[in-house]
Amino acid sequence: MKKIRVGVVGATGYTGEEIVKILAKHPQAELTYVSGKEDRDVKIQDIFPYLKNSLDLECRAFSFEEAAEKCDLVFLSLPHTVSQEFAPRFLKAKIKVIDVSADYRLKDEAIYEKFYKVKHKDLVSLRQAVYGLPEANRDKIKSATLIANPGCYPTGSILGILAGAKKGVLDLDSIIIDAKSGVTGAGRKAEKALNFSEVNESFKAYKLFEHQHVPEINQELERATRKEVSVVFVPHLLPINRGILSTIYVKLKKKTNTAELIALYKKFYQNEPFVKVYEGGALPEIKHVAHTNFCDIGLRVNESKNLAVIVTAIDNLGKGAAGQAVQNMNIMSGFDERAGL
Amino acid sequence: MKKIRVGVVGATGYTGEEIVKILAKHPQAELTYVSGKEDRDVKIQDIFPYLKNSLDLECRAFSFEEAAEKCDLVFLSLPHTVSQEFAPRFLKAKIKVIDVSADYRLKDEAIYEKFYKVKHKDLVSLRQAVYGLPEANRDKIKSATLIANPGCYPTGSILGILAGAKKGVLDLDSIIIDAKSGVTGAGRKAEKALNFSEVNESFKAYKLFEHQHVPEINQELERATRKEVSVVFVPHLLPINRGILSTIYVKLKKKTNTAELIALYKKFYQNEPFVKVYEGGALPEIKHVAHTNFCDIGLRVNESKNLAVIVTAIDNLGKGAAGQAVQNMNIMSGFDERAGL
Amino acid sequence: MKKIRVGVVGATGYTGEEIVKILAKHPQAELTYVSGKEDRDVKIQDIFPYLKNSLDLECRAFSFEEAAEKCDLVFLSLPHTVSQEFAPRFLKAKIKVIDVSADYRLKDEAIYEKFYKVKHKDLVSLRQAVYGLPEANRDKIKSATLIANPGCYPTGSILGILAGAKKGVLDLDSIIIDAKSGVTGAGRKAEKALNFSEVNESFKAYKLFEHQHVPEINQELERATRKEVSVVFVPHLLPINRGILSTIYVKLKKKTNTAELIALYKKFYQNEPFVKVYEGGALPEIKHVAHTNFCDIGLRVNESKNLAVIVTAIDNLGKGAAGQAVQNMNIMSGFDERAGL
Amino acid sequence: MKKIRVGVVGATGYTGEEIVKILAKHPQAELTYVSGKEDRDVKIQDIFPYLKNSLDLECRAFSFEEAAEKCDLVFLSLPHTVSQEFAPRFLKAKIKVIDVSADYRLKDEAIYEKFYKVKHKDLVSLRQAVYGLPEANRDKIKSATLIANPGCYPTGSILGILAGAKKGVLDLDSIIIDAKSGVTGAGRKAEKALNFSEVNESFKAYKLFEHQHVPEINQELERATRKEVSVVFVPHLLPINRGILSTIYVKLKKKTNTAELIALYKKFYQNEPFVKVYEGGALPEIKHVAHTNFCDIGLRVNESKNLAVIVTAIDNLGKGAAGQAVQNMNIMSGFDERAGL
Repeated sequence: MKKIRVGVVGATGYTGEEIVKILAKHPQAELTYVSGKEDRDVKIQDIFPYLKNSLDLECRAFSFEEAAEKCDLVFLSLPHTVSQEFAPRFLKAKIKVIDVSADYRLKDEAIYEKFYKVKHKDLVSLRQAVYGLPEANRDKIKSATLIANPGCYPTGSILGILAGAKKGVLDLDSIIIDAKSGVTGAGRKAEKALNFSEVNESFKAYKLFEHQHVPEINQELERATRKEVSVVFVPHLLPINRGILSTIYVKLKKKTNTAELIALYKKFYQNEPFVKVYEGGALPEIKHVAHTNFCDIGLRVNESKNLAVIVTAIDNLGKGAAGQAVQNMNIMSGFDERAGL
Repeated sequence: MKKIRVGVVGATGYTGEEIVKILAKHPQAELTYVSGKEDRDVKIQDIFPYLKNSLDLECRAFSFEEAAEKCDLVFLSLPHTVSQEFAPRFLKAKIKVIDVSADYRLKDEAIYEKFYKVKHKDLVSLRQAVYGLPEANRDKIKSATLIANPGCYPTGSILGILAGAKKGVLDLDSIIIDAKSGVTGAGRKAEKALNFSEVNESFKAYKLFEHQHVPEINQELERATRKEVSVVFVPHLLPINRGILSTIYVKLKKKTNTAELIALYKKFYQNEPFVKVYEGGALPEIKHVAHTNFCDIGLRVNESKNLAVIVTAIDNLGKGAAGQAVQNMNIMSGFDERAGL
Repeated sequence: MKKIRVGVVGATGYTGEEIVKILAKHPQAELTYVSGKEDRDVKIQDIFPYLKNSLDLECRAFSFEEAAEKCDLVFLSLPHTVSQEFAPRFLKAKIKVIDVSADYRLKDEAIYEKFYKVKHKDLVSLRQAVYGLPEANRDKIKSATLIANPGCYPTGSILGILAGAKKGVLDLDSIIIDAKSGVTGAGRKAEKALNFSEVNESFKAYKLFEHQHVPEINQELERATRKEVSVVFVPHLLPINRGILSTIYVKLKKKTNTAELIALYKKFYQNEPFVKVYEGGALPEIKHVAHTNFCDIGLRVNESKNLAVIVTAIDNLGKGAAGQAVQNMNIMSGFDERAGL
Repeated sequence: MKKIRVGVVGATGYTGEEIVKILAKHPQAELTYVSGKEDRDVKIQDIFPYLKNSLDLECRAFSFEEAAEKCDLVFLSLPHTVSQEFAPRFLKAKIKVIDVSADYRLKDEAIYEKFYKVKHKDLVSLRQAVYGLPEANRDKIKSATLIANPGCYPTGSILGILAGAKKGVLDLDSIIIDAKSGVTGAGRKAEKALNFSEVNESFKAYKLFEHQHVPEINQELERATRKEVSVVFVPHLLPINRGILSTIYVKLKKKTNTAELIALYKKFYQNEPFVKVYEGGALPEIKHVAHTNFCDIGLRVNESKNLAVIVTAIDNLGKGAAGQAVQNMNIMSGFDERAGL
């Protein structure tokens, strides 16, 4: 099979780096273009020395013309609000776009403006963008030209709730998500609060009720259930590099037990290559999903409280960003969904 | 003022070490006896080299007679089920006991047996033991001869709930506690699951619904409110040495807002030397309480959900064990409650 | 090309797990047998959940007959002194063996006994074993039937010294190796000194002058140079999971400078797929080699002292164990040396 | 005894914070003034919540007049090159100064300019400043008005060498210092290379031969021995918050053994309250000195190589900065040297 030509715009952040790392070993995609803001005219394998043996490619100062000429598909791994400037140009040039920023995730531009503090400038593309969560949207992804790759917290949260919500066993008014994320989730940046000594040996909650991923979770659960959803979401900062564990508390609409709930989830996700539902009440751990594209799910029912506790684990750079982006590329391109992952 | 003579039985575990460290600088207590299972005939300052300058004391193989002769008060920092063997002998010898194990915390011996897998052998002392949470029980602690020093998780959980529960604003049927603890909470022991490489760069929930601290939390909240309480409690293991952050979700019985709830908590704890209620919705972090005896509390109300999120932070070895034990000693001895802390 | 059938005896330790992980994606090897002491009758993908999608294989209680029947080549990932019992049986059955323990590394059985505290029981195989460092021994590895896979510290140390030693620019009497290793180097075991809280936020030197890897380093440098070598070696324990950084201090036999020494190393290793010599005095970091089979080398000369400082970084589970073991398998099997790595 | 009035200029960096923390419990010093660049008009106990119970003091925007009026002694915890502007003004006002920056450490202003990239503006004070290492300079410190508080690396390095150098057993031409420091040594600042995810799970050497602490180590060893000294110094960055371990390699001028060298060090430091020389070849660990003012020293001699390996451990914020600064204050003020420490 002929390989597709792929580019990564913004290859030196954590997510961009991870996409490059995956693509370097992908059997059906050839990485033909990478750009980065700070490291112009440097070989990408000199920036990330472990790429020796697998890549020989210059990391370029971004040029739309060059990227458009060299690629059939581009990953935009750019800060929020910047992707909007480039996505429509690529689409116009018939180049498929997988945007890992938040720019095309929220369908309601008023909510986008409220949470990201800028007016959305590309409503046309926003209307056509497909939310790239394969477990919810695989068919639309197949024919999409612009993918809004899901946020890391939403991926772990939605996959924990989706099966039970679609099957009608969860009380959607009662969802509480207590999420804990590693530090790469904040991006590769200089910030006093992200200094090693500030994060290490500590732990905190932040952005209580106000995190920009809340409307994204609500939107996708509403689309899946056609009911109003408003989750309580409390993110915390874990002193680790990679991984999100989400502990989800939700009331059950009817009496059920741990075994039945597990059975329901196993059935719902039975054909999903990257979702693992644990048996017998076992619970996932971040170390079992780090450096992978998996979402592991453990479930327990407290029968006297009629409450389910659902624990999901993902790698925020894997299923929460780069891995899922490549999974989307595979689906869009007709490849085996697991290729390279 | 004449100093009291104090002993630590079990001085080489994490909690015992921390009690020794605090007492070494205590202005009104003289550490006259320390024992440890493994390190007989060694100077305690050779086991813990930072004690140079402050202590010169042999760590002894335990002898009841020696301890009884040398001490007015002893801390029992022993494994659960072992404290029961020694506490009654000390009490009979008119020596006050602060037990940091779980042996005298649960008033119902059937529940003790269910969670600790052995029959309780000292019901007489169990009846007289006072649960050593000063913020709930200060008056009884003053005249106690046997203190059941609270567990680490219960301390952080109860202090987060106590004010609102006593003041009647919280719906006691709805309490969910999502707690995260550092690794010293598991004790200084050889165990594959506690090996550095198993814990580091990971995170997990464990003992869902089944943790032995659940009945302790319920018991003390029931005593405080004279109502039935059954909390949902999910502990998690944090890759840090010290500290517990508890994120508590609880429905409000009447409309209130963040400012009002903070005001209520500030008033309730206004005379407490070791509880800090944060202003303006600020949230505590483990690094701000590590190596201290403080419990820091942050509060936010989600008005549309009529839900409070209460975040508490303690050092599991400080307010969650050794610090609180010394605070109890101070109260029992008529010292300034903050002495040495 | 027909795949070879490969087994891993001792698949549940850190090195065994890593070999399994690599082989699960190897294009020319089929993992047909895995055994583990503790986890009999469990699927290997249930022990290591990230193997879903790539393996479906039972982890068996070890049986020589079963292993011999199912494999063309076995990796023995067993504790030191245990490999000796199985290696000769496999060899007799014409099955190739890559032993990742220390049992076949030291040619002098008296030194083996001194450092490993048992008599060697298989001197016949010991004589024929090939030390599996491809950069020093590639030709012998090609035709070997028993590989003694190098230790983690020796790999990082020898590769830092080999080029300069072979080319005669280093004063072999002056070698000082200050090595720092992550905790997986100690194996997956229950041990108080390896408890998270004992290692985290600390750092120490250990086994000064006495580490069992000292004679291994000396032996291989002596073989390479045909001169007597006796290095000063001080290992330290780093609070990280994976990686070794070795800072090597060595006097130069003649005046040289940083650029010349780098040029010499680059030339020496120019055809090595897994050695990277850094340009311009740049220095390697553990994060750039973690989860890879690379050894990165940085060099600086202090001309006034006539001293070279050579810094090497490897992943102790990669080039320091499992990665190198698979590299050896590739060489023995005539595969591309980089296959699967 | 009347308390002295003390100020901390630059109280919100790591060292400033640590000085404040120590002074808050000091029996003979009253903290009367703290200033910080960023946090004006905030209570210091609101910036560092654990100070509740011990301090009630506003953190002020710096004013020389206010500081001069309120203090008998000030700690300048400012960036290098900034201290020079304030120190002479305080000295003129008869206020003692302990400068924890590097501004008054290097006696040769040309070397200062070479390493700190600015001309020194206060040569008058530079001439009178006393290098505040009590173990080398106690008598001069007693009568000093300006203390140049030693750097963190120099403290751990010099104390490991001083005894042997003064007693003439070490070959001063052969000193190699392989030092490893926690991240607080770099200060509380926003910098991409100090981001948690860049430091965590990694390890690297940096500033090989070029670190600004090299001339400081050389200068003080030269002063102590009246011989020329030029050490090889290689610093490394440890993924921990606090602590420096220095592994020092040095040739012996005459045959000696481990026991003799330990005896020499024990005798040399016998009256030092904050130096601990380990018995029997035991080696220090960072966890045993973290949060203390101790320097722990372990020694081993390799007799066949005639080489000593000396390992020292300090807390870079304790004996390496704030603790030593307070020790100097105690000496200058005639207090018990251990007061508050």
